[in-house]
Amino acid sequence: MLQNARAPISFYFDFISPYGYFASTQIEALAARYGRTVDWRPVLIGITVLKIMGLKPLMDTPLKSEYIAHDKPRMAKLLGVPFKEHGLRGHNSVAASRAFLWLKAQDPVLAVRFAHRIYARLWVRGEDFTSAQAVAEEAQALGVDSDKLLAAIETTALKNALKDAVDQAVALGVFGVPFFIADGEPIWGVDRLWMLEQWLRDGSWTGR
Amino acid sequence: MLQNARAPISFYFDFISPYGYFASTQIEALAARYGRTVDWRPVLIGITVLKIMGLKPLMDTPLKSEYIAHDKPRMAKLLGVPFKEHGLRGHNSVAASRAFLWLKAQDPVLAVRFAHRIYARLWVRGEDFTSAQAVAEEAQALGVDSDKLLAAIETTALKNALKDAVDQAVALGVFGVPFFIADGEPIWGVDRLWMLEQWLRDGSWTGR
Repeated sequence: MLQNARAPISFYFDFISPYGYFASTQIEALAARYGRTVDWRPVLIGITVLKIMGLKPLMDTPLKSEYIAHDKPRMAKLLGVPFKEHGLRGHNSVAASRAFLWLKAQDPVLAVRFAHRIYARLWVRGEDFTSAQAVAEEAQALGVDSDKLLAAIETTALKNALKDAVDQAVALGVFGVPFFIADGEPIWGVDRLWMLEQWLRDGSWTGR
Repeated sequence: MLQNARAPISFYFDFISPYGYFASTQIEALAARYGRTVDWRPVLIGITVLKIMGLKPLMDTPLKSEYIAHDKPRMAKLLGVPFKEHGLRGHNSVAASRAFLWLKAQDPVLAVRFAHRIYARLWVRGEDFTSAQAVAEEAQALGVDSDKLLAAIETTALKNALKDAVDQAVALGVFGVPFFIADGEPIWGVDRLWMLEQWLRDGSWTGR
């Protein structure tokens, strides 16, 4: 373990997931408490969950959809973070995720600030973020040249970069979000932050 | 909350679920720490998950099946409980769950001891528990008249009792296992024992 003791934690997220949002509000502070950094990696659960796993969207799954509807606001209370339900359907993370990757290649810290803004737009203000224009607005607020961003996210290079990001995540076994990989240990779900913390603290599952 | 402060925690379980087994090793002690008792309630996830929710078995779900295979032994380590993977397919909880309900109607404490034995048979020793004979063996080891048990689990009354138990659970929104309901709060998953504990401690999601 020692050689990886300071390796970044991979944090897989999708902007459309409220649980991804919840995790995004916690992961940086959790990692910092153990001297770790976070490598933010966008994925598309429309591909992992729906196409590869062959499951239905949560909201179309009987029983679980009601549970999740009850769970989201209480998870926000538990974590002490703002949360607003939106009634959006058909929204997706493609433009925002491409923009994230474009920003990350230039300035990873800026990209994370952008990710927080997109999450806040959807899950705090309850506004759509699907269009390139919405994505550009959030980037522009951070001083990013929105014309450059709008051009970049339509390039084949960036389309492929997002496709590759998803493929690489799947190759590592990532399916839902949030998903964390620390020192090779895969951990799924905001309800397992305690488990990630135990790993960061102990480097094992049986205590130090 | 005060009027329910000592209400039992409903613990929904299915013997075929390893996560149900993991929860079964923790729930009594957790409840007792907060002066609560546990009402053990069998459900059949073959009905809730497969038929009502329309999902596939975990082990037939790409990506998640590999994650679960990795997760089970580490969860056992985390909780400090014995665990053995079995290669069984096609096993089911029907006979054991009927026997549990028959025992519970006579002696709830004995029924819980029986449940622990069935869980140990499947998840500690890795032996099948599907047949009425296997179920009767475990009950007999607790001094139960196995002939009476074998007759009882074939009665229409007990068949209906299990069917009703599943229907009632579904009506309350129970789907997977383990599933806990404490003071009306539904909590799903052994990875959320921390959340159940917070509720029992605080009676709210925002602290005491």
